[in-house]
Amino acid sequence: MDAEQLREYGHKMVDFIADYYKTIENFPVLSQVEPGYLRNLLPDSAPNQPDSFQHVLDGEVAQLILEFIRLHIQAKILPGVTHWQSPNYFAYYPSNSSVAGFVGEMLSAGLNIVGFSWIASPAATELEMIVLDWLAKMLKLPEDFLSAGQGGGVIQGTASEAVLVVLLAARDKVLRRVGKDALEKLVVYASDQTHSSLQKACQIAGIHPENCRLLKATSSTNYALSPEFLSETISQDLTIGLIPFFLCATVGTTSSTAVDPLLSLGKIAKSNGMWFHVDAAYAGSACVCPEFRHYMDGVEVADSFNMNAHKWFLTNFDCSALWVKDRSALVQALSTNPEFLKNKASQANMVVDYKDWQVPLGRRFRSLKLWMVLRLYGLENLQCYIRNHIKLAKHFENLIAQDPRFEVVTPRIFSLVCFRLLPVRNNESHGNKLNHQLLDAVNSTGSAFISHTVLSGKYILRFAVGAPLTEEKHVNAAWKVLQDKATSLLAESL
Amino acid sequence: MDAEQLREYGHKMVDFIADYYKTIENFPVLSQVEPGYLRNLLPDSAPNQPDSFQHVLDGEVAQLILEFIRLHIQAKILPGVTHWQSPNYFAYYPSNSSVAGFVGEMLSAGLNIVGFSWIASPAATELEMIVLDWLAKMLKLPEDFLSAGQGGGVIQGTASEAVLVVLLAARDKVLRRVGKDALEKLVVYASDQTHSSLQKACQIAGIHPENCRLLKATSSTNYALSPEFLSETISQDLTIGLIPFFLCATVGTTSSTAVDPLLSLGKIAKSNGMWFHVDAAYAGSACVCPEFRHYMDGVEVADSFNMNAHKWFLTNFDCSALWVKDRSALVQALSTNPEFLKNKASQANMVVDYKDWQVPLGRRFRSLKLWMVLRLYGLENLQCYIRNHIKLAKHFENLIAQDPRFEVVTPRIFSLVCFRLLPVRNNESHGNKLNHQLLDAVNSTGSAFISHTVLSGKYILRFAVGAPLTEEKHVNAAWKVLQDKATSLLAESL
Repeated sequence: MDAEQLREYGHKMVDFIADYYKTIENFPVLSQVEPGYLRNLLPDSAPNQPDSFQHVLDGEVAQLILEFIRLHIQAKILPGVTHWQSPNYFAYYPSNSSVAGFVGEMLSAGLNIVGFSWIASPAATELEMIVLDWLAKMLKLPEDFLSAGQGGGVIQGTASEAVLVVLLAARDKVLRRVGKDALEKLVVYASDQTHSSLQKACQIAGIHPENCRLLKATSSTNYALSPEFLSETISQDLTIGLIPFFLCATVGTTSSTAVDPLLSLGKIAKSNGMWFHVDAAYAGSACVCPEFRHYMDGVEVADSFNMNAHKWFLTNFDCSALWVKDRSALVQALSTNPEFLKNKASQANMVVDYKDWQVPLGRRFRSLKLWMVLRLYGLENLQCYIRNHIKLAKHFENLIAQDPRFEVVTPRIFSLVCFRLLPVRNNESHGNKLNHQLLDAVNSTGSAFISHTVLSGKYILRFAVGAPLTEEKHVNAAWKVLQDKATSLLAESL
Repeated sequence: MDAEQLREYGHKMVDFIADYYKTIENFPVLSQVEPGYLRNLLPDSAPNQPDSFQHVLDGEVAQLILEFIRLHIQAKILPGVTHWQSPNYFAYYPSNSSVAGFVGEMLSAGLNIVGFSWIASPAATELEMIVLDWLAKMLKLPEDFLSAGQGGGVIQGTASEAVLVVLLAARDKVLRRVGKDALEKLVVYASDQTHSSLQKACQIAGIHPENCRLLKATSSTNYALSPEFLSETISQDLTIGLIPFFLCATVGTTSSTAVDPLLSLGKIAKSNGMWFHVDAAYAGSACVCPEFRHYMDGVEVADSFNMNAHKWFLTNFDCSALWVKDRSALVQALSTNPEFLKNKASQANMVVDYKDWQVPLGRRFRSLKLWMVLRLYGLENLQCYIRNHIKLAKHFENLIAQDPRFEVVTPRIFSLVCFRLLPVRNNESHGNKLNHQLLDAVNSTGSAFISHTVLSGKYILRFAVGAPLTEEKHVNAAWKVLQDKATSLLAESL
């Protein structure tokens, strides 16, 4: 660790990354390599000595990193990169990068502290508490979620970890009440549109797979969970002696941005003594705009709420914000207290030790990047940013409406458009094949990257606007590719 | 995301971080702030508009980040930072930063991809497989752990996540055999010196706390787990109908770098059909040197092996390398296959999808930094690096031996020295208090940071050499502070 070498290398890497963003549209968005491509390009084992050690001996430090970038990163790595930051990226959900988020990551990597306890770097814990209070206020979360009371926020790596830790907190809370041998009786509820991370969390927590009720949501509710269906299912489970203990609702599902009716669902959960978790991993960001905040109405009855600042909020991956009303439930499920970590501040209960709010012990200084995003952009700019993407998604929706060969499948709510090429002669199974082919055809051009889902048996294309660099011209260009490829496919299928 | 703004901000941040390393010795190693210090320095909520928006309007982009660094980072954050990269940091275990690790992190933050599946960025998956094969070869791991066969390596965030995922794999494997209702009969074994992350993994996985056998290790084995004791305990458990299924052994325990006898322990595990995990989170790095490799002997009977490249291997946090012999066991425990992630390469089983080897779905491009460390430093430099720290620890040990007021408590094996100030008149309880006071006295100077543990009821000080910038003069200076503070305390206690 030589400070001047870090300066030289760092500056070269900054230039490389800035140049990457300037030329990002030149790369195929979806990497076009074949499986195993890299194995052929790299040696079988690590070098005994650095490749270009001679340069270092000669003092040509800057030369070494430039060669490394050219010979290794540009030639071997970049061809295998799928460019999530490309303005032509419309797949899955976005993973935002920004200048503030990027330099925040740099600072975190530079300080390189491990903030498991308050004492391990007080600023890491305190900044995280403060910044999550800020974000909670931007989202108009109820005061119970703020750190001043019994609740508070914490940065998890991903929404998967967020739902896992609250599931564990809920599991252990109910088992303390009914006895630890009742695990096999515990039942979890959600719609079948809920993210797969809930199912994974259940697997990890030892919830029996048959007790993970993923209730069918249909087009009749725009793929939202029906409170009546939930109520009936809970009643049936209670009748046969099972113990309902956890409900997960979603604001903005992964397939189609469906919004579950939080208030009705939450009331059912509460009247049955269940933990109520709200997953707004994607759409939570939009709720900082007053006109979208109502999608979160009902969050006041929730026990926990999650949104991913790394998705659509300009904070580099990973940064998943989780709030709970009762932090002691998390701590009871996740704390350990080994001698080698004991210290005055923790023992005296004067501080929060985030190690007890998460799965791992070690943790990065992730609040820096979120703090820099909030501070350097401010609420108003973030609202503009969200609104612009939603405007672009509306624009894409309008383009589809003008082409009778296509249809929008579910009502667009945020910045995702679910659409498809209509099947020829109402042949649904051929329609599914056609849309699958259209997806592959578009993605293999490298000029845009979209993804898919299946709703009520229909193969659907997903167009998610959310990359920071995306402008109207990119949406138009992607639409042009879609139209052209559709024309070719329809001609072939005649 | 403006490329030129990224360049400006990035360069300023690189300079700030390089300057930080140049002046790092000026800061108190352990932050001396009081709980709640930051709340008083920051506003109650995020700004509506960026503080210094005027500067951006004026085009003074570089000025904005410089002011931010000065007014916010330097003035408010740094006082609350405990400086893990300081050469005077000797606490816990190290968390290494290096130029290669740092620029690798920068590149990962710059590309900002989310590599859950191969298709999401083929280079991320493939580089990780290749680099973990490289590292496995450097550690002379058996071939079964390489990706060419049924095994392979994966980067987890921390050793906590590594032990959790293999525990889950083992749990589900045995439950498939004996029936899923047998969870309460499953028993885990380890010594009481094992890292607390095992206990936490058991809590998460639903292993009953009374079935988590942390067998007492004593000074008679230098705090290593006794195979005889393990064997007896397993026999007793079998007699009463319990199901032993998981053994965790450690190479280099957290308290005192104890090394469990892998081969004897592993044979017992194997003859009882148990999963055998080896945790070498800290000491694994040393095993790239031939003279230390024998501490891992017996790893050939293990099912999984873990070392943290972010501890003592110049790779910025987080980067915990885990290898398994049977990757299908991980995948069976952790896979989900939602429609929205389906793709040709995954469906055809042509690729590894690391989402199924870990808890979260999303994952960062962490192999970049490890790759750059291996490539830019090479094996020989890494070996020198390790040996130098071990030499410095030996030097510290010699200093202690020359002062009859102190004793080395357990034999030094790697770069951790466990020592204490001898109790006056053999009063052990006063001795414990004395060493606790000595720890606080040294750490409150800010000139060095050490930590502690308790072994056989004795309060022990831990001096872990491992920060990249540490030289002999820093060890000498820390020793001088320890001696001076000991002199004062002993005078007071007369």
